[in-house]
Amino acid sequence: MTTLSDAELETLLRYWRAANYLAVGQIYLRDNPLLREPLRPEHVKPRLLGHWGTCPGLNLIYAHLNRLIRQRDLDVLFICGPGHGAPAVLANLFLEGTYSEFYPHITGDEEGLRKFFRQFSFPGGVPSHCAPQTPGSIHEGGELGYSLAHAFGAAFDHPELLVCCVVGDGEAETGPLATAWHGNKFLNPASDGAVLPILHLNGYKIANPTVLARIDEEELTALLTGCGWHPLYVSGDDPAQVHRDFAAALAQAADAIAAIQRQARNQPGRIERRRWPMLVLRTPKGWTGPKTVDDKPVEGTWRSHQVPLSDLHQHPERIAQLEAWLQSYRPEELFDESGRPLPELRAQAPEGNKRMGACPYANGGLLIRDLRLPEFDDYAVSVPYPGGTDAEATRALGRFLRDVIRLNEDLRHFRLMGPDEIRSNRLDAVFEASDRVWLGRLLPTDEHLAPEGRIMEILSEHTCQGWLEGYLLTGRHGLFTSYEAFIHIVDSMFNQHAKWLKEAREVPWRRPIASLNYLLTSHVWRQDHNGFTHQDPGFIDLVVNKKSELIQVYFPPDANSLLFIADRCLRSRDCINVIIVGKQPEPQWLDMDAAIRHCTAGIGIWEWASNDQDGETDVVMACCGDVPTLETLAAVDLIRTHLPEVKVRVVNVVDLMTLQPPEEHPHGLPDKAFDTLFTTDRPIVFAYHGYPWLIHRLAYRRTNHKNLHVRGYKEEGTTTTPFDMVVRNDIDRFHLVMDVIDRLPQLGARGAHIRQLMRDRIIDHKRYIVEHGHDMPEIRNWRWPRET
Amino acid sequence: MTTLSDAELETLLRYWRAANYLAVGQIYLRDNPLLREPLRPEHVKPRLLGHWGTCPGLNLIYAHLNRLIRQRDLDVLFICGPGHGAPAVLANLFLEGTYSEFYPHITGDEEGLRKFFRQFSFPGGVPSHCAPQTPGSIHEGGELGYSLAHAFGAAFDHPELLVCCVVGDGEAETGPLATAWHGNKFLNPASDGAVLPILHLNGYKIANPTVLARIDEEELTALLTGCGWHPLYVSGDDPAQVHRDFAAALAQAADAIAAIQRQARNQPGRIERRRWPMLVLRTPKGWTGPKTVDDKPVEGTWRSHQVPLSDLHQHPERIAQLEAWLQSYRPEELFDESGRPLPELRAQAPEGNKRMGACPYANGGLLIRDLRLPEFDDYAVSVPYPGGTDAEATRALGRFLRDVIRLNEDLRHFRLMGPDEIRSNRLDAVFEASDRVWLGRLLPTDEHLAPEGRIMEILSEHTCQGWLEGYLLTGRHGLFTSYEAFIHIVDSMFNQHAKWLKEAREVPWRRPIASLNYLLTSHVWRQDHNGFTHQDPGFIDLVVNKKSELIQVYFPPDANSLLFIADRCLRSRDCINVIIVGKQPEPQWLDMDAAIRHCTAGIGIWEWASNDQDGETDVVMACCGDVPTLETLAAVDLIRTHLPEVKVRVVNVVDLMTLQPPEEHPHGLPDKAFDTLFTTDRPIVFAYHGYPWLIHRLAYRRTNHKNLHVRGYKEEGTTTTPFDMVVRNDIDRFHLVMDVIDRLPQLGARGAHIRQLMRDRIIDHKRYIVEHGHDMPEIRNWRWPRET
Repeated sequence: MTTLSDAELETLLRYWRAANYLAVGQIYLRDNPLLREPLRPEHVKPRLLGHWGTCPGLNLIYAHLNRLIRQRDLDVLFICGPGHGAPAVLANLFLEGTYSEFYPHITGDEEGLRKFFRQFSFPGGVPSHCAPQTPGSIHEGGELGYSLAHAFGAAFDHPELLVCCVVGDGEAETGPLATAWHGNKFLNPASDGAVLPILHLNGYKIANPTVLARIDEEELTALLTGCGWHPLYVSGDDPAQVHRDFAAALAQAADAIAAIQRQARNQPGRIERRRWPMLVLRTPKGWTGPKTVDDKPVEGTWRSHQVPLSDLHQHPERIAQLEAWLQSYRPEELFDESGRPLPELRAQAPEGNKRMGACPYANGGLLIRDLRLPEFDDYAVSVPYPGGTDAEATRALGRFLRDVIRLNEDLRHFRLMGPDEIRSNRLDAVFEASDRVWLGRLLPTDEHLAPEGRIMEILSEHTCQGWLEGYLLTGRHGLFTSYEAFIHIVDSMFNQHAKWLKEAREVPWRRPIASLNYLLTSHVWRQDHNGFTHQDPGFIDLVVNKKSELIQVYFPPDANSLLFIADRCLRSRDCINVIIVGKQPEPQWLDMDAAIRHCTAGIGIWEWASNDQDGETDVVMACCGDVPTLETLAAVDLIRTHLPEVKVRVVNVVDLMTLQPPEEHPHGLPDKAFDTLFTTDRPIVFAYHGYPWLIHRLAYRRTNHKNLHVRGYKEEGTTTTPFDMVVRNDIDRFHLVMDVIDRLPQLGARGAHIRQLMRDRIIDHKRYIVEHGHDMPEIRNWRWPRET
Repeated sequence: MTTLSDAELETLLRYWRAANYLAVGQIYLRDNPLLREPLRPEHVKPRLLGHWGTCPGLNLIYAHLNRLIRQRDLDVLFICGPGHGAPAVLANLFLEGTYSEFYPHITGDEEGLRKFFRQFSFPGGVPSHCAPQTPGSIHEGGELGYSLAHAFGAAFDHPELLVCCVVGDGEAETGPLATAWHGNKFLNPASDGAVLPILHLNGYKIANPTVLARIDEEELTALLTGCGWHPLYVSGDDPAQVHRDFAAALAQAADAIAAIQRQARNQPGRIERRRWPMLVLRTPKGWTGPKTVDDKPVEGTWRSHQVPLSDLHQHPERIAQLEAWLQSYRPEELFDESGRPLPELRAQAPEGNKRMGACPYANGGLLIRDLRLPEFDDYAVSVPYPGGTDAEATRALGRFLRDVIRLNEDLRHFRLMGPDEIRSNRLDAVFEASDRVWLGRLLPTDEHLAPEGRIMEILSEHTCQGWLEGYLLTGRHGLFTSYEAFIHIVDSMFNQHAKWLKEAREVPWRRPIASLNYLLTSHVWRQDHNGFTHQDPGFIDLVVNKKSELIQVYFPPDANSLLFIADRCLRSRDCINVIIVGKQPEPQWLDMDAAIRHCTAGIGIWEWASNDQDGETDVVMACCGDVPTLETLAAVDLIRTHLPEVKVRVVNVVDLMTLQPPEEHPHGLPDKAFDTLFTTDRPIVFAYHGYPWLIHRLAYRRTNHKNLHVRGYKEEGTTTTPFDMVVRNDIDRFHLVMDVIDRLPQLGARGAHIRQLMRDRIIDHKRYIVEHGHDMPEIRNWRWPRET
């Protein structure tokens, strides 16, 4: 079943030797790159870092993908799950010439090679795994588990693209990877590209065998078949035979993909899920490396994982062993006099942008087109006066997103992701514009499921996040909506994406991509019915640990504010935006003009709610988040009723980052402006959506920090009523009034009396809910008093 | 293939009707629990909460497990993946009588039933999903994905236990669940119990079909077979037939389990992995509920997910529909005059502790035995004087853990978990005492792999965490070691476990369990070789958001401190302990006596490093974390050399929680003690392991906070040298000296001169590493000067 001529095989084997040589060279050599003099200790790096074990397999795959691209003129994006195999990826970039094009100081000759080797995992050089600095890569691979979800994200809406994704057998043990196989149920063969997974069974992790390498092939076939794939196996340790077999299997896979796509694209009828091909490559870990070291087996074992020959400076005899290993690739047959790879090796790679290192899809900012956005104010909720109407903020946003989908239908570059919560989060209007992508079986009772669609729902936050990352990194736009508490599931993926963005911003050839937008709703204060497990606002704390120029956290207090903020986020680039807002019907505060003014500033005094316009401010009542805003205004209402002499200023915070000093965040308010809003000496009672200490952390350098008193979620919750949630955390209207009274001793006995009144109301509340099962009418029906 | 007599079937069907009735009653009724008068609006709860869709299937499973236990006298722990199916679980607890035993106010009669219905999802009542308050449960199910890993954790080392784990088809889409199937490669049929997964395909999530319900049975069989299981299917919507089939399938599964165990336990020879049975139950979502509502199909669709008939108070005609639904279970045939379930229904459950609600394994604190701990000081590293020796802290701990394993070998109640990092984290000594559990194929080259073992490694942090949680919740002990950066992968699982512990502490009948211990090493400062993706100390910030009495965060500065802290953590109960320490060779500061004194206090002045004993302190140099401690001491050394007149006090923090006020954390230092350590007016230069603002957050209320200057990780990293990592984040010795000088203007020109000298050394460093690839000898060889 071979498709490889002997001559082709010969060249492929030489190419593979060259790539392997370059991989070993990067790990070990700081000088004498072509071994043109005997290897001496001073040629060897002082610290040996890098992962050899996976490299020979990666090199083999890359070589054959080169051939496939040449033969079939394909656009291939290469995703390297074993990201620590960067020596292999870099070796191929060097051979195909892209590396020197992106980094001209790495010339193609011996001197360039010396630098190329030296820089690897060297201070001031390049990381030991694929990174934003790596041409052709959208996937870091430092933290394992996300390669296959990234691959699907890249393939969606790129019908001409083939994403080849190498999955390591270590990575395959992770949860996110284990469920990512099911991406094939969401891939449309007509309008999406193809994903070709290549499961590389080299048998070992750091120090253990891998699960999938130690089950029978029959069982593995069942597993992959059960995940919807048609696995093609290539196994062995004889290079020539493995190359032959791999060429054949790859051709078979490419034929199968082409057939599936042809059928879906050229024949009318319903698009259905197909059984896509995939490859399983079983080769020895550290193949072609040292067979033994100190009489212990190395090739084909976990001892090949990183640096098979280590501590060379303590074991001079290993210098000779390293030299023999390097010489086994016969570099003199691979490089010319000047040190350049021989032309026939270079010719193994395709030309121009067909080279995987030059793949434009890997630099999404090259391809991105602006998202067409409707005028957000067309979706405004009519707010005749503050509190004059109720609305569900996310429902308003749903109408806006519906039209985002419609306006961009032909560009096919916007998707909405969610773990089965789009409807629960009340964004239903989007279904007027699009269906959920579903390639599985359909039943007559199904609604809004179709092979085509802009909406993706799978009960895996990992998959949603991974898909969206892949989609954005290849030049598109999107939004991920989740329950607030469960976004913690992807904390680590958020971290890694933030790290990618930080690094990518420093890579001159990387173009800006669309921001990663989170809409967190069903938030901590409105998970009363779902109980304590669903109550967690801690994602914000994670987010603000990242580089401040990358991150934005928004708390729109109502629907019109949300529309403005969503529009801003969808326009932004190279950031991570977090929007936190409720989905329940709530009083609306700002008409669209007011919302625009307020959200543009990010923070401001709500004059209409304040009564300190003429006279000294007694207290600043600050609020951030929709529920804290509601409770603050209700508290202000109580103060006006019971303590009309108190001059209250209401400050609302939409953009959390305004609280930080400007040197910490680009949105940070200058100290002077901060002092103007918060005064320098009046008490501040601050009602905040999340864990209260975050406000202290952001504002501890501000003049009036000593008078800042923050209420927020203090990890008290259960299954109860919405108002009881705020009461349990002392952030309800009654507690807020008490907090104000406690800070205004001048109120004396009158204050004490009102304080007791508030205390009594809390007791009334507790009694009422246990009796009736819902909140008191005075709470549910409270509205901001209209003052005309 | 039936094993069910007609009489048995009849009783089972009645039991099932009773359980379904009780489930619906909990969701809807606040009064008139037995419909002994016509149903009126005031009998219906004002807020309808709960998840009906999964209940009929759960009730069927529970009924058949009851029968299995009775027939075979089994010990069964029931894990309910669809945790929102609490109405079903509670219904069965009520029927078997355990609920009234745990909660005597819920009497077994009509009045008890009224309270039982009313309390569900009602303020002051019980949550809408399984929770610590639920007898017989170790699994919350609020956040999906962890049921099967919990089940395996419970089964390890409980050879007599059968863990039946219902996996919802929604949950099955999550990553953690998708990889948890592979737990069977780590389960020893001789010395562990059995896990019987029951995949419940009811077809829908909240608003979407599920992936696994819409693939062909052949494909699903392949998937489950590929995961190493033997699936037995039961499908249908005819109750009698499904009951018959389920009884037969369950008997077949139980037979197969018994055969596997018998063979492994009674026959000599190597224990091997076996193909365990599992069940797949395909029944309609919301089975027996309303077929349609408003002409829309409900039974068998996603519309049954939560409350199929909603807004009853707005739609009075639905009251009749609800009544008809409830009456369809014919309650008058199920309950006696007094409202008690008929004796033959009660008799369906087994007796005493065999009832799943009374399963002692679900209240692990009942079973726990103290861990036998060796004397930790026997493992002390000899430290003749501070800095007088180097050691790898985790290697010392490895020797201690080795003997923990040995001492508890016969009790089989301690396990060590790690994502393939035990050796990399230098705990290798444990392999002298035990192997890694591995039921897969073995090769001659393998080391320390065996079916028996105390050490568990799989490249899935989710699985490690889930296993350990299950192990601890059922009364055992353990430690989870991970790279610091990647522990974020289980942020959300940590959150949920912390929430469980908080609630469990408030449940009077729950007994304390062993704490969840994390050893985080390969930490941010020593991931220079692995690069930016491996550098993240943010887990600490997540941890300190949880209820303070539950959490401890320790930074032992050296090996002896680590031994003391590890011993403390392994003795503790009902907490989550996080230990952060490096694995690299580092100078050792404290002999064992000093370590005990220092760690007992949790914070203290290091007199031997301070020179303010006679005279006024000029500056406090505080440090927390091993690398910050090293840099601080090196900075003190520089100050002594160049600015001997400066009186420095060194404060080291082991127990991070001491920084908080005592009202915030039980370990919090009283203000007076804090002021004594940190002074009330001297500058404090604080070198901290993690993100610096956390220290401000913890200490912002302290007297001297205004003079507190914190250095820490500010998200700067790459592949570089260890010392360059600290330099990039301004926490190195040179920057620390500059920080001190900047705060002591009295040093004048001399200070400015030394400041410049420090600046020059940083430049020297940058030059040196780019040239040599490792840190300057003066850095690598620096040791604290011995002063005798």
